[in-house]
Amino acid sequence: MAEAYVLALDAMGGDFGPSVVISGAALALKRHPELQFHLFGQAAAIEAELKNHPELASRCVIRHTDTVIAMDAKPSQALRRGKGTSLWQALECVRDGEAAFAVSAGNTGALMACARFILRTVPGIDRPALAGQWPTIHRPSIVLDVGANIGATARDLCQFALMGAAMAQAVFGIERPTVGLLNVGVEEIKGADEVKEAHALLKRVDLMFDYRGYVEGDQIGQGVVDVVVCEGFTGNVALKTAEGTAKQIATYLREAMTSSVSAKLGALLARGGFQVLKARMDPRRNNGGTFLGLAGIAIKSHGGTDALGFASAIDVGYGMARSKTVERLAADIALLSSKLDQLVGDVAPAVAASGASSN
Amino acid sequence: MAEAYVLALDAMGGDFGPSVVISGAALALKRHPELQFHLFGQAAAIEAELKNHPELASRCVIRHTDTVIAMDAKPSQALRRGKGTSLWQALECVRDGEAAFAVSAGNTGALMACARFILRTVPGIDRPALAGQWPTIHRPSIVLDVGANIGATARDLCQFALMGAAMAQAVFGIERPTVGLLNVGVEEIKGADEVKEAHALLKRVDLMFDYRGYVEGDQIGQGVVDVVVCEGFTGNVALKTAEGTAKQIATYLREAMTSSVSAKLGALLARGGFQVLKARMDPRRNNGGTFLGLAGIAIKSHGGTDALGFASAIDVGYGMARSKTVERLAADIALLSSKLDQLVGDVAPAVAASGASSN
Repeated sequence: MAEAYVLALDAMGGDFGPSVVISGAALALKRHPELQFHLFGQAAAIEAELKNHPELASRCVIRHTDTVIAMDAKPSQALRRGKGTSLWQALECVRDGEAAFAVSAGNTGALMACARFILRTVPGIDRPALAGQWPTIHRPSIVLDVGANIGATARDLCQFALMGAAMAQAVFGIERPTVGLLNVGVEEIKGADEVKEAHALLKRVDLMFDYRGYVEGDQIGQGVVDVVVCEGFTGNVALKTAEGTAKQIATYLREAMTSSVSAKLGALLARGGFQVLKARMDPRRNNGGTFLGLAGIAIKSHGGTDALGFASAIDVGYGMARSKTVERLAADIALLSSKLDQLVGDVAPAVAASGASSN
Repeated sequence: MAEAYVLALDAMGGDFGPSVVISGAALALKRHPELQFHLFGQAAAIEAELKNHPELASRCVIRHTDTVIAMDAKPSQALRRGKGTSLWQALECVRDGEAAFAVSAGNTGALMACARFILRTVPGIDRPALAGQWPTIHRPSIVLDVGANIGATARDLCQFALMGAAMAQAVFGIERPTVGLLNVGVEEIKGADEVKEAHALLKRVDLMFDYRGYVEGDQIGQGVVDVVVCEGFTGNVALKTAEGTAKQIATYLREAMTSSVSAKLGALLARGGFQVLKARMDPRRNNGGTFLGLAGIAIKSHGGTDALGFASAIDVGYGMARSKTVERLAADIALLSSKLDQLVGDVAPAVAASGASSN
């Protein structure tokens, strides 16, 4: 296994390719001077960018490749034609133990498919999950799955709880993260059957997180728990709906602040306040989605982010590598599996016997 | 069937009971002087409120009952013990053709269970849906199901499309509403199987709405379609997540506008602008959820709303009653069913044959 400070970057991913990746890496190096980089992509383009960052250049190995996975490639295309591309090679570098983690701003579906294929899952994990950081009025929460899979069994949801808690430990340094299960009501009888079954199981497994029961959609942004667990379709819709609502309100606010001369003047006078607001809503601070449940660390940076955002994504990978999240997760998943095997005979009939309808 | 302007009100529902219901009714009467009211609840409490609204009093029949369904009653309790309560009698009044629609600010689950039991579903409908109005940067959209059921088949989703379109016609006067299917991506291969199957069906049925394909969570608030169709668990999470995000940003905004003296002064100067913002985000304007697919109209008002919000809920019921939404829906559902029966043999194997995985 590579030292925690060696990382593999897909230099070609994202809307801006090497220019953002290299400046992001330079920023990350300022934060963590021990970092070393393997940069995968077109050597000439990478070298041109590195001229602006001589300190970074001395910490980099360039691994040339001419091929890339297109931003609009489908996962199946990425798998068929991805071999040799910058993304593929960055992931192989992690698989082969040369780098502790990989970061790409490339297309999510392609990264997910290739990472799963190249890095494989931790034994006992059926479905890896995509975990996102969700800004709340307190510190950010981890929400998963936000779209790696559609559908999840009760056992998958329990694994997501454990995986999300491991990420919260690594990225935010929370010793015993709190975990909630996303549901449509906080009463015990409500919810989808697999969610109710997962609730019954999570109440009874005693692991390194603190299970707090159900949370509803409006509680995520209140930061009531460190980790919110849900199935991938719902999680993806929730995440995008929150992004859309933020955008919608920003539109309202802009229109309101230009609706009269005094509003315009007031907005000008309050511009310091609006900068505070903008900083709190800055998505670059919480950039870096993670595929959890793989036998290696692959971080997804937002495709449209800048150097600051890309550096945040590197921070996430670095935190996980330093905490040995993958190694610890493998042991924790084995422990969870044995506990669930003991419980599941008790709990599944109990849920069925409660006769709770789906309403 | 009662004339469109006769309505039944559960005077005891909501956090404030008769005081909000009666003032809301008075406001509705000002908007629609032809309205007539059956008020169900404690006669003394209702009469006391009516003293403040003599014009309304002359248009009301008070139907006394001492019993109410508690705001925290579970749906099963409401069904077992609900008979004779103000909510129950208001719904019976619709069933018996004395009123064209009922409005209650009582507990959602109880209203849903009682309405389904008393009013029954339109023939051919397996799952009624709860439809909500979702404010967007354009006019509001109808989103359904936001929590009447968990899970939905492709056929259910097609029915929701039709039901939502009928509501958009009735409430917003849109002749040929546009409809989208909520999914995790706009590519054809993505999504849950039932969503993909519904997509294939909706593309091919030719009805009184214009099917526009998939929409993602961040597009709802952009108002890209008049009707957004989804399964109830996802819809409920999406709706609550949007509410939570709006609340979260309001917190940020308040803190930002008090973060310095100049921000405070600016906010004071821009208070007209903030009032514009507040008005656009005012949930009272879009109050009034509807159970669609029932053989009668039952409107759910928010429990914590005021007179203005309650009057909006009455508007929704009045719009649907005048448009004969239920009668027209029964005919449209029968037409949809026959079209789906023809299609379903073609489409289901086509979806299966596409071999699309869930990712």
